[in-house]
Amino acid sequence: MSPSDIDLNADCGESLHAWAMDGDEAVLRVVSSANVACGFHAGDPTVARRTCTVAAEHGVTVGAQVSYDDLKGFGRRFIAVPRAELTDQLVYQIGALQALARASGTGVRYVKPHGALYNTIVHHEEHAGAVVDAVRDVDETLPLLVLPGSEIERQARAAGLRTVREAFADRGYTPQATLVPRSEPGAVLHDPEQIAARVVRMATEHVVETVDGSVVAVDAESICVHGDTPGALAIAERVRRALEEAGLRVGSFL
Amino acid sequence: MSPSDIDLNADCGESLHAWAMDGDEAVLRVVSSANVACGFHAGDPTVARRTCTVAAEHGVTVGAQVSYDDLKGFGRRFIAVPRAELTDQLVYQIGALQALARASGTGVRYVKPHGALYNTIVHHEEHAGAVVDAVRDVDETLPLLVLPGSEIERQARAAGLRTVREAFADRGYTPQATLVPRSEPGAVLHDPEQIAARVVRMATEHVVETVDGSVVAVDAESICVHGDTPGALAIAERVRRALEEAGLRVGSFL
Amino acid sequence: MSPSDIDLNADCGESLHAWAMDGDEAVLRVVSSANVACGFHAGDPTVARRTCTVAAEHGVTVGAQVSYDDLKGFGRRFIAVPRAELTDQLVYQIGALQALARASGTGVRYVKPHGALYNTIVHHEEHAGAVVDAVRDVDETLPLLVLPGSEIERQARAAGLRTVREAFADRGYTPQATLVPRSEPGAVLHDPEQIAARVVRMATEHVVETVDGSVVAVDAESICVHGDTPGALAIAERVRRALEEAGLRVGSFL
Amino acid sequence: MSPSDIDLNADCGESLHAWAMDGDEAVLRVVSSANVACGFHAGDPTVARRTCTVAAEHGVTVGAQVSYDDLKGFGRRFIAVPRAELTDQLVYQIGALQALARASGTGVRYVKPHGALYNTIVHHEEHAGAVVDAVRDVDETLPLLVLPGSEIERQARAAGLRTVREAFADRGYTPQATLVPRSEPGAVLHDPEQIAARVVRMATEHVVETVDGSVVAVDAESICVHGDTPGALAIAERVRRALEEAGLRVGSFL
Repeated sequence: MSPSDIDLNADCGESLHAWAMDGDEAVLRVVSSANVACGFHAGDPTVARRTCTVAAEHGVTVGAQVSYDDLKGFGRRFIAVPRAELTDQLVYQIGALQALARASGTGVRYVKPHGALYNTIVHHEEHAGAVVDAVRDVDETLPLLVLPGSEIERQARAAGLRTVREAFADRGYTPQATLVPRSEPGAVLHDPEQIAARVVRMATEHVVETVDGSVVAVDAESICVHGDTPGALAIAERVRRALEEAGLRVGSFL
Repeated sequence: MSPSDIDLNADCGESLHAWAMDGDEAVLRVVSSANVACGFHAGDPTVARRTCTVAAEHGVTVGAQVSYDDLKGFGRRFIAVPRAELTDQLVYQIGALQALARASGTGVRYVKPHGALYNTIVHHEEHAGAVVDAVRDVDETLPLLVLPGSEIERQARAAGLRTVREAFADRGYTPQATLVPRSEPGAVLHDPEQIAARVVRMATEHVVETVDGSVVAVDAESICVHGDTPGALAIAERVRRALEEAGLRVGSFL
Repeated sequence: MSPSDIDLNADCGESLHAWAMDGDEAVLRVVSSANVACGFHAGDPTVARRTCTVAAEHGVTVGAQVSYDDLKGFGRRFIAVPRAELTDQLVYQIGALQALARASGTGVRYVKPHGALYNTIVHHEEHAGAVVDAVRDVDETLPLLVLPGSEIERQARAAGLRTVREAFADRGYTPQATLVPRSEPGAVLHDPEQIAARVVRMATEHVVETVDGSVVAVDAESICVHGDTPGALAIAERVRRALEEAGLRVGSFL
Repeated sequence: MSPSDIDLNADCGESLHAWAMDGDEAVLRVVSSANVACGFHAGDPTVARRTCTVAAEHGVTVGAQVSYDDLKGFGRRFIAVPRAELTDQLVYQIGALQALARASGTGVRYVKPHGALYNTIVHHEEHAGAVVDAVRDVDETLPLLVLPGSEIERQARAAGLRTVREAFADRGYTPQATLVPRSEPGAVLHDPEQIAARVVRMATEHVVETVDGSVVAVDAESICVHGDTPGALAIAERVRRALEEAGLRVGSFL
């Protein structure tokens, strides 16, 4: 059993040469798990390696943040790639990051799909299957960060993979415990105090207040925060402090 | 000690989706070592994986054919990338191929730089150093295929890496045992019988006849052949048959 | 009015450095219209320019063969790019080819979408709209090669663009005058004599025999042939000869 | 003759999707000439088009900022591409931007090489020749922004192209009127007041104070400023204000 009460994860290593993502390294002082970009939507070998090195210095667990092959679109666009090719692309990414992480004195401990891939495998059987195949091809003991109730969660469990459910610190929830679509009011929260209080409640009571004021169960081992803007970083820091003030141990789900 | 007398290596896995390299898989029935492209100058994850699978089926040893990041130029152009970035790019490539090779039931057993990188590290200290650093970062037991007398050979040996000297089946040699530049007469041989006879002599007497008719020592554990045209493939097949007819065991240098 | 009876078009300029497409230039001796790749799914500036030069030498009309931004997938994968971004990508491609074509002594005279984009805009309103916007942005007098009855045809006509209907020499047709899906029997024809006879009938009687033996009207100003395999090139040559033997003038639809 | 006394130019359009360059659009309120990235080292069709649109709104002249094909390296790495291929790549870039600029209600009025290409053609005959060839291929009336005394200036003039000499607002000069290398003290200036005063002196007296306190002639029609950091933008704004306070008309060299 994990010695921690709750994990905080964030996307990292998403700079690209001249194009720096603000807070990319700063967030490594806040989270316990770093989803490191593998070069297919962001990052490059040097950025990925440096991110792994800094993560290792801060005792942060490294995960492979895998994506469709879409550097120009930041991995935010669905690509209709055949299932077997997607599997191979994901194996390639995880393997590449494994080598860089080892060279940095750490290793890849979990996998989290990024952007359009993350959203697609909530429902897309073929691409969810490709993700499951890739993890099994590389290392079937690697946990997969998933949205609760998703197709990827279902398939991963059926395949015997460990799944780690995540919740989102700054997203509104419906009474059905799904995320409020970004096109609707209440989709994204901005008040650090409110967000911090919600995360503490998620971690202690395993519930969240929904957009209509009701309360719904949220079962998550990891909470996703962001570090890519000064505002997001401040929220992540506030969340971390609130969890610690509540007496919770923030640490990897491993 | 290796149970074989001589190794044959060739570049493989250099197809790219719609663009097929002729003979790319056929040459795997001829050689004992396959230099599999890692996606930076050719190949893609699916081509690389299939090549590893076919290599494994034929008992062919897989090596990582690493390159500058130059898919549009087939890795044939020098790129003035900083040393540390080049190292990270090479670690990335080897790691990616390791994961695909393992998924194919085999593994990466050696490293061979490609094209402009191969030619550059014959003399370029910084980039030769980057190659050495990358192999050490990934796995310091991986042998490196090198041109005899090159800067990369010198640095790799100084770093304690195993180097494997290679000779070229179809290239002319000078009395100084260097390759005749491609711009000069006699640089490339085309007659299968002549080439096969030369390779047998390289493998048995460790000498080669030079462009001026003299004989010079060639100390090579591996002979590079090609499979990327029907003519090249026929030459590779003739070389293999000649070696076997001479009673030599063709096999990996491992 | 055009001085020709029927146009033959084919995809060209789809080589990429080390990866040559067979027959890429040979087909320019057969067709009257060359759909030149613009670098987003195939081709590169040097291949595109050389293709334009050879086309100009043979009196072949040059069109811009535009694609999703998918060099690794040969443009065969749908990409969920936002409409306005797709428009900008298409304007970029047409403009780039215009400059290369002018430098080759010719110009871009029409536009033909490639692969997944071609198939998508048969029904996809947003992406069809992006294609229409791009042509209007660049030059509203440029004709667009379209599948008869498609969404792109409808939108292009509504926008006042000239559309040129094309038929396919080697594809089976349903009684509804649509293409037989590739997954069904009769989707692709292989007999050069049969194909040539069909094309002559398309060009003279404006009908085609369908998979069930009935005859359906096909209204096409251009017939698409292929040159990317020796077999395809032989078919294209047979089609051309048959048309000429039937007394028809093969030439651009312009 | 130009109605302005001095031109200010800056690199623009260097964002890339998720990776925003700070001040990329803000600098368009300061300069009279915008070097818009063409997608080979930065920018993408949508960023380029929006930059052209904003430039047009501010009455800023658009130039094509062309580069080696090096998106991952921000065009800062020399690539040993053959001369004719480089020419074709440059024609491709200029043509692509021409189409986007026209769609934005403006046009490409000059060419400025970027990064490693800019530095290389100061001395590299082959690549300087490729730039000259590209401008002639596209439109021989397009002026070329050049470093005074460079190989590219020499070749462009010999070819009958118009060259526009530029000076650098924030760089130290040697007594020989060359730039102080970045590795040496005094290479880059940071004080906005000092920089503004120097630029005014360049524009009025056509001289600059060198690192050793002497004064040397600087003959420039355009001054290069930067907008890619808040500090750089503030300097550019200070330079503009100083020029106007000195009674000078800031405007394009056209």
